[in-house]
Parts: sequence; structure tokens; C-alpha cells
Amino acid sequence: MDFDRFFQSQLQRLHDDGSYRVFADLERKQGLYPLATRHAANGSNDVTVWCSNDYLGMGQHPKVLAAMKAAIECCGAGSGGTRNISGTSHYHVALERELAELHGKDSALLFTSGYVANWATLGTLGARIPGLIIFSDASNHASMIEGIRYAGCAKAIWRHNDLRDLEAKLAAANPTSPKLIAFESVYSMDGDIAPIKEICDLADKYGAMTYLDEVHAVGVYGPRGGGIAEREGLMERLTVIEGTLAKAFGVMGGYIAASRQLCDFVRSFASGFIFTTSLPPSLAAGAIASIQHLKTNSSERVRHQESVRRIRVQLNRYGLPHLENPSHIVPFIVGDAAKCKWISDILLEDFHVYLQPINYPTVPKGTERLRITPNPTHSEADITHLVNALRSLWSNCALARGVA
Amino acid sequence: MDFDRFFQSQLQRLHDDGSYRVFADLERKQGLYPLATRHAANGSNDVTVWCSNDYLGMGQHPKVLAAMKAAIECCGAGSGGTRNISGTSHYHVALERELAELHGKDSALLFTSGYVANWATLGTLGARIPGLIIFSDASNHASMIEGIRYAGCAKAIWRHNDLRDLEAKLAAANPTSPKLIAFESVYSMDGDIAPIKEICDLADKYGAMTYLDEVHAVGVYGPRGGGIAEREGLMERLTVIEGTLAKAFGVMGGYIAASRQLCDFVRSFASGFIFTTSLPPSLAAGAIASIQHLKTNSSERVRHQESVRRIRVQLNRYGLPHLENPSHIVPFIVGDAAKCKWISDILLEDFHVYLQPINYPTVPKGTERLRITPNPTHSEADITHLVNALRSLWSNCALARGVA
Ligand SMILES: Cc1ncc(COP(=O)(O)O)c(C=O)c1O
Ligand SMILES: Cc1ncc(COP(=O)(O)O)c(C=O)c1O
Repeated sequence: MDFDRFFQSQLQRLHDDGSYRVFADLERKQGLYPLATRHAANGSNDVTVWCSNDYLGMGQHPKVLAAMKAAIECCGAGSGGTRNISGTSHYHVALERELAELHGKDSALLFTSGYVANWATLGTLGARIPGLIIFSDASNHASMIEGIRYAGCAKAIWRHNDLRDLEAKLAAANPTSPKLIAFESVYSMDGDIAPIKEICDLADKYGAMTYLDEVHAVGVYGPRGGGIAEREGLMERLTVIEGTLAKAFGVMGGYIAASRQLCDFVRSFASGFIFTTSLPPSLAAGAIASIQHLKTNSSERVRHQESVRRIRVQLNRYGLPHLENPSHIVPFIVGDAAKCKWISDILLEDFHVYLQPINYPTVPKGTERLRITPNPTHSEADITHLVNALRSLWSNCALARGVA
Repeated sequence: MDFDRFFQSQLQRLHDDGSYRVFADLERKQGLYPLATRHAANGSNDVTVWCSNDYLGMGQHPKVLAAMKAAIECCGAGSGGTRNISGTSHYHVALERELAELHGKDSALLFTSGYVANWATLGTLGARIPGLIIFSDASNHASMIEGIRYAGCAKAIWRHNDLRDLEAKLAAANPTSPKLIAFESVYSMDGDIAPIKEICDLADKYGAMTYLDEVHAVGVYGPRGGGIAEREGLMERLTVIEGTLAKAFGVMGGYIAASRQLCDFVRSFASGFIFTTSLPPSLAAGAIASIQHLKTNSSERVRHQESVRRIRVQLNRYGLPHLENPSHIVPFIVGDAAKCKWISDILLEDFHVYLQPINYPTVPKGTERLRITPNPTHSEADITHLVNALRSLWSNCALARGVA
């Protein structure tokens, strides 16, 4: 078998349907964010980033950068080992404490990413709790889906955010089986938000654990950045809160916050936790600084919501089709992979606006989009420039205005 | 079901058989490595680290630290996105080029860790190449095993480093099925090395791809740190070389180096690559500096081998039982989880030597060990101190000397 030819033929299909991915080569300008230098074959130029998940600009916050540099100065580059074999630094211990406190839980456990946190935790719970049934929202993130697949346990997929369907599935299951409901707070691609309270009510009624992915909400919502569950006063009703350090906190890494026993159980049995080098101390130090800042300062959150509001107002003014939702994510639906890439390419080349086309497998085919993520660092002029660019492209585009 | 009680009962079993893990809380002293401050309930003290995978001390190399700090200064903390959605920085692009060049391949692809590199690559190849059979060495790392499990493809486990068994299994398989042989160069817990050339010969004979995990060898072996395959002039015979940035390179992250088509295929289809935030630019920058340094300087490698040789000589002098092997890993076999932890605790408390006990599931039960990893930064006095400590404990210990 000619393997490279096989790979090439599979890649050709992506080229053919317009979903082949080309990564933009960027250098973010610390201190001038959302500006970045874009490197291309024909030279470099400055662009305004409109699709980053560094939602609050904490990736350039002076406290975060100072903490990272101080940790490098103090302890060096990497951790040098797995958590068990010389890879637990004082920063890891302190960060786990900080995260447990943020979510009002006994304990927290760090992973190398939010992806690994979901995969390893759901995988371990599902594989090791005899008879566990996982009730998974149909729109859950790939990392949760893979964790549930890994577990090999029974599962029931309930219609996205549909309480009636969830209850029907809970009621249909064996009442004596242990159960876990897995869902997200802010869904990253549509920006809608789960009815957390009602899901917790159902969990209580049917004796299920709850597992909430707050990856797109931590830092961004709640008086101390604890996420949607904090904002709604629901943190203590959740068995597990999962989050990332790589989006609003601006660094990298993932975690769960839960009871001491649950965290210790996952710590002791999860392959994806045990058999990998831990996060560098500098990343843990940066995350601590970011979390502490956002626990006691709301100004980034306030300015962030202001940016979100302003861009929605301008898009509405010109009938530019974005999904309405109660979050900070502004999906501009194009609905066609090739057109989406075409708009994105022109935004980049002619308007120096960087908005990556989002295509399959990140969103379903036919819902390709530009996913706008306003940032407190976007100025009024940035917003006007983006909306004007979208207007001129949208009127050139064959698609009708105001129609998603 | 009382979930916390269930977790506690499972944890109790680990306590009972002595394999419950207690992480040492360390602060490595940059510039004074292998020294670290150990934090404990009853205060802190300095310890000498003897079990780190920062094999060459690159985690404190001034070039690496300077590159990391410069990248933080330039671009900030995190990458802000997945590789596709605003998370590709110029440092990622440059690092992938550096890694491809190191291994003499067309391309390389970065992952958040070596664990994810193995899991995602083997998982994607096995799931997407119709009919693929993976021939996996019985001692392969957990991350490879999970990748192969994820793939759900046919597999054959061959006896560790046993060419005859590998050939028997290749010969027994359908000649027209596509095949891949997955193995490691240096096996991390026993320190033995695979017969790479002979495995490649078998791969050629049976038309199989080869996948080599060089996680414990990159940086450490080969004139430019390309690993065992470089040292033996075999890099071009391997289809995929997988490595980590978190051990000898001293930072964090994982990668594969392979053909352009294979890397592009994994880039385009692997869930574990696509759906996760990319490495922070500072980690990529630190890794570039480390790899470049080790490509052109052999002094760390030379001093490293010298430390390994010196410690083996001293252990042999006193009949202290370590596994002989052709690598830099010196396993001191104790063979009992509780005794291993007991020795480790006394080394830490009384001798200020940090050697984490290695127990199940990292090694099979009954082969619990102290895994000594000499470093170029260990002095003659450090070595003598460690060996004296082991001697006094070993004679106190009920186990016979000279018997593994
Ligand atoms: C809902 C959700 N969960 C988890 C993750 C993974 O987090 P991380 O980027 O830290 O791996 C993501 C995105 O990356 C996500 O969108
Ligand atoms: C053989 C082997 N492969 C892969 C890994 C994973 O690498 P990383 O620590 O970068 O996740 C390890 C250890 O951690 C290992 O020993």
C-alpha cells in the first residue's frame, strides 16, 4: 500500500469541498493586542485578531506575564516530570488550591489541557464506576465525546439543552444504575447557555452526578470569574466543574474542581493524568496570577460585555446575520465552507481583519461561520472597521442579507 | 449510590497495598539544579533531585530561559486558540521546521504533549486507514496503548523487543492488509533499547510502516540529539518518529516527524490535535532554543553519559542491585511497593535525596523500583552521597544485596 498516496487522496477531498484548513501564521503583539503580525509567503503585515479565545486579553496582562517570568527565573523551563515523578511544583499545588476555592469545592486537579481534563475524567469515571450511565448533551465538545467513548460505559445522548428529552432518558434508565449528566454552560460555537439549575434539579430527582464544562465561561462570568454556575449561585449543586486555563485565563492547561475523593480518584486512576509530564511551573504561576486578578477585578468582564453589546448593535443596524444568544460569542453564519473561506481570505488580505473560517468538523457542514469574539481590547474604531468590512463583503456575496 | 464513598473505598485499596501516591511538592532551584526546595507540612528544606526526566538540565539552560522570556515579552502568555483558530504563532511554525530538520523528515506536527502525540497519531492512523493492523511492542507506553485502543483497528501485541515473535505475527497476518509497527527506542522504566534496524528490516520485508517513540532518547542520543535512530543512521527508515519537548529538551509539548502527507493527514483529522488550545508561544520558543543548542553542542550529552557511568561504577562497587542496560536510566529494583516507598521516604527525610518510588501502574507489581536518572549537573559528591545513602538503607532493609 502506498500510504502517502492514500493520505493525499483523503486530503484532496478536503480541498475539493473547501474544508481544507490553512493556519494563519501570527505573532501576537503583547501590549498591543488585538494586533498581531501575520507572516505570509509574500511578506508580513499587521492584522486585528477577531477570533481569539483569549476573551479578556489576560494573555497580555502585566501581572500574568510578570508571574510567568518570575517562575522561569525561579524554577526554570519545564517541570521535568509527571506529577508523581518529580513533576509537582509548588505552583501546581497552589494553583489547585486557587481553583478549588474559585469553584467552592474541596479539591481541584490539573491536566495538561481542557481537552485532556474532559477526556481523562469522563473516561475514568465511566470506565471505573460499575454500571455508570452517562447522559451526554448532543452538542458536547469533542473532548467529552472522546472521554465517554473511552469509558465504554452505557450512554444516552439527549437533545441539546432539551430538558424534556433529558428527563425522558433519565426516567427510562434503570433506577438503581449510577448516573452522570455531562453538559456545558456556554456552548462555544452557537454561544447558547444550558439551563443549569433545571438540569441539577433533574439530577437530584434521579440521583445523578453532574459534570459541567465551563471552558468558555470561567473568568468571563460570575462576580469572581467562577463561570455561569457562579453567576447563578449553582456551583455547589454540581459534582464536577471542568475548565481551562487557556481561554479567558490566557495561559494553558485544564482542570476539574470537585470533592476531595473524586479528585483523588481521578488523580490515582486516570491514564491521561498519570502518564504525562505536568505543566511547566511558569504556566501554573501565570494562571494563578490571572485567576487571582479576575477574582477581585470585574473591569475586564464589564468592558468585555460592552464590546459584545456594541458589535451586536452595529451588526443589527446593517442586517448582518449573526446568531442571537445570551453570551459573548457572536457567530456570523455563512453556511458554506468555500464562501466562508473566501470572505475570511478577503478580510485578511484587503481589510487586515483576521477571522478564521470555522468549518467541519468543528461545526456541522452547512453551518460554516465566522465566529466573532469581541475583546475588551477592541476599540470602537476596530468594531466599525470590522462591520464595514463585513458589510461590503456581504453585499458582494451572493448570499441574501439578514438570512442565516 | 454514595459516589464519594465508592471513590474512597477504591482509594483505600491503594493505601492497603502501599501503592497510593503522594506527590512531593518541589520548587526546583533554577541555576542550582539538581537542587530543589521541598515543601512539606512540617516546613521546607533543600533536596537533591535524582529522578527528573530533565535529563540534560536543559530546563535551566540560559538560552532556553532567555528565549521563553523574550517570547512572553513579544507575544504574551497563551496562544489564545486552537492551531486553526488564531492559535498558530510564528514560533509553532518555526519549531515544526526545526523538528522536521532534526529528524530528517519533510514535516513535523506539534501536540500539547508526547502523550497526546502518541494517542492522537496512532488513534487517527488506526481508525482511518482501512484494514490497518498495528503491531505493538508489549512494553509500549500507556499513551501508545490508548491510541491503539482508540483506533479500534486490528492489533497484534508482540513480545517486548522480540524480533522472532514480531516476524511470526507479521507473517501470520493477511499479506494485503496495511500494517504499522509501533515501538519505542529507549524504554523508560527498564532502560533497554529496541533493535531498530532489525525492526525496520522486518517492516520492509512485510511492507509495514514504522512508528518509533523516541521520547526518552531525543536530545540525549545522536550527534545532533536526534535520538537512537539518528545515532544508528536509521532515521530515514522510519515512517514516523515521535518525541517530547518535556524531557531532555526541558520544556513541554510533543510531536511527530514524518512525510508531508502523513503530518497533514493527522493535522486534518486527529481530534486530539484539532480540538485543543495550542502550546503557548513561550514554550515553542524555549523548545527551539533547546533543540538548536543540542544540535550543535554535545557537551551536555558527554557529561550526562559520564554521570551515568560514574553512578553505575559506584553501585556495582557495593553490590547495589540495578538493572544493567545500554541507556542513561538506572533502575534500582526493590520489588515491593511498601518497601520502595519506605526507602524513598527515608532518603527524603534523612538524606535529603529525592527519588520517587515507582509503582503500579507505571511498572508491573512486584517490580517496584527507584528509577535513578543521573544528570550532567550531578556532582561527584552528589553521587557519593546518594550511593552511601542507598548502602546504609539497603543493609537495613530485609532484602538481600545484589539480588534484583
Ligand atoms: C467546550 C470545550 N471544552 C474543552 C475544550 C478544550 O480545552 P483546551 O483548549 O484547554 O484543551 C474546548 C476547546 O478547546 C472547548 O470548546
Ligand atoms: C515512552 C513515553 N512516551 C510518551 C510519553 C509522554 O510524553 P509527555 O510527557 O510529553 O506527555 C512518556 C512519558 O511521559 C513516555 O515515557
